[in-house]
Amino acid sequence: MKVQLERMLPQEIERRSMELIQEELDRRGLAIPPALAPVVKRVIHTTADFDYAENLVFSSQAVELGQKALQMGAAVVTDTQMARSGINKKALARFGGEALCFMSDPDVAQQAVQAGTTRAVASMEKAAKVLASRPAIFAIGNAPTALARLYELATEGVLRPALVIGVPVGFVNVVEAKELFLQLDVPYIIARGRKGGSNVAAAIVNALLYSIK
Amino acid sequence: MKVQLERMLPQEIERRSMELIQEELDRRGLAIPPALAPVVKRVIHTTADFDYAENLVFSSQAVELGQKALQMGAAVVTDTQMARSGINKKALARFGGEALCFMSDPDVAQQAVQAGTTRAVASMEKAAKVLASRPAIFAIGNAPTALARLYELATEGVLRPALVIGVPVGFVNVVEAKELFLQLDVPYIIARGRKGGSNVAAAIVNALLYSIK
Repeated sequence: MKVQLERMLPQEIERRSMELIQEELDRRGLAIPPALAPVVKRVIHTTADFDYAENLVFSSQAVELGQKALQMGAAVVTDTQMARSGINKKALARFGGEALCFMSDPDVAQQAVQAGTTRAVASMEKAAKVLASRPAIFAIGNAPTALARLYELATEGVLRPALVIGVPVGFVNVVEAKELFLQLDVPYIIARGRKGGSNVAAAIVNALLYSIK
Repeated sequence: MKVQLERMLPQEIERRSMELIQEELDRRGLAIPPALAPVVKRVIHTTADFDYAENLVFSSQAVELGQKALQMGAAVVTDTQMARSGINKKALARFGGEALCFMSDPDVAQQAVQAGTTRAVASMEKAAKVLASRPAIFAIGNAPTALARLYELATEGVLRPALVIGVPVGFVNVVEAKELFLQLDVPYIIARGRKGGSNVAAAIVNALLYSIK
């Protein structure tokens, strides 16, 4: 039996999906500023969840600063292999950038045990060392402890991220870590509340890449 | 500045998260059958989205059949590298299983171009060939065309999946492909409606693995 779905090329499907998302945003009376729309709409495209039209918050010029960093070949550091996997590495490489995740590194596991902390925390510390002199975007979709450690490293002046995408998901410490980060003078894109995820983190990086003029 | 989050080990955080999810399900009057609860709660844990308590549908004995297949060393085939990345490969390997994704294979890309179809379709066809004589679970979090091709391969008798996890996300052809699959006599776990994703597909596989007695 042959299944009849509308036959469209992947690019057509994406274009049509974005139209449908815009129509539904309009219907719901959700006006997204044009500069933020590529990010908000891609996250909704990734999740089919319109809550993100209301819970994503952006520091001043966050999209432009993220794009500028990517154009300079910034590294993108994730807190899961899954987020790294979802990032379009070809698009990133066109500007000289790469996606890095230190979560599976043996030295990170060892450091976490020695310090009595999480691998997510240890992986952020490794990133701070490895990327000391390179522009870096942090895309955190899973571990609130990673976001909290970034907050500390930034306030201590150890790290100056080009952008922090703070979208860990969860029920414990997640809301607190995000609200804390909002107080910081570091460019951010944050999903307030409990929602987020590795897929959301990757979608935001890809949205920045795809909307570079 | 030292950030004060509740200090808990990852296992404690997960245990506490599951308690909070159960409390919220109770508060919302959503009673999940015990056999399905590990899957439903892990998907909510992954997304913080309680819609999944209502949109996940299970064919008769789907959880038990999926677990039995995993215990027999079933392969898990995904339609994205991201879903493959999110599956706990160590837990899978304990039973002799492995996670496979053919989406990046050069022969799949070539076949898709030749046949004028999507890589997702071509990757399902490759899976049907490669896994002809092995038990297999399909975890589809992205491409409705992959789910539609599985429907065809199953109705044609080419493939008899042990379980199909049908949770593609999106706005075009997604609802239709899922509703179609629900008519089929193949074990399934499907997220009705537009929601789903690679993270949801991986979470369901992991939930099955973790709840094997």
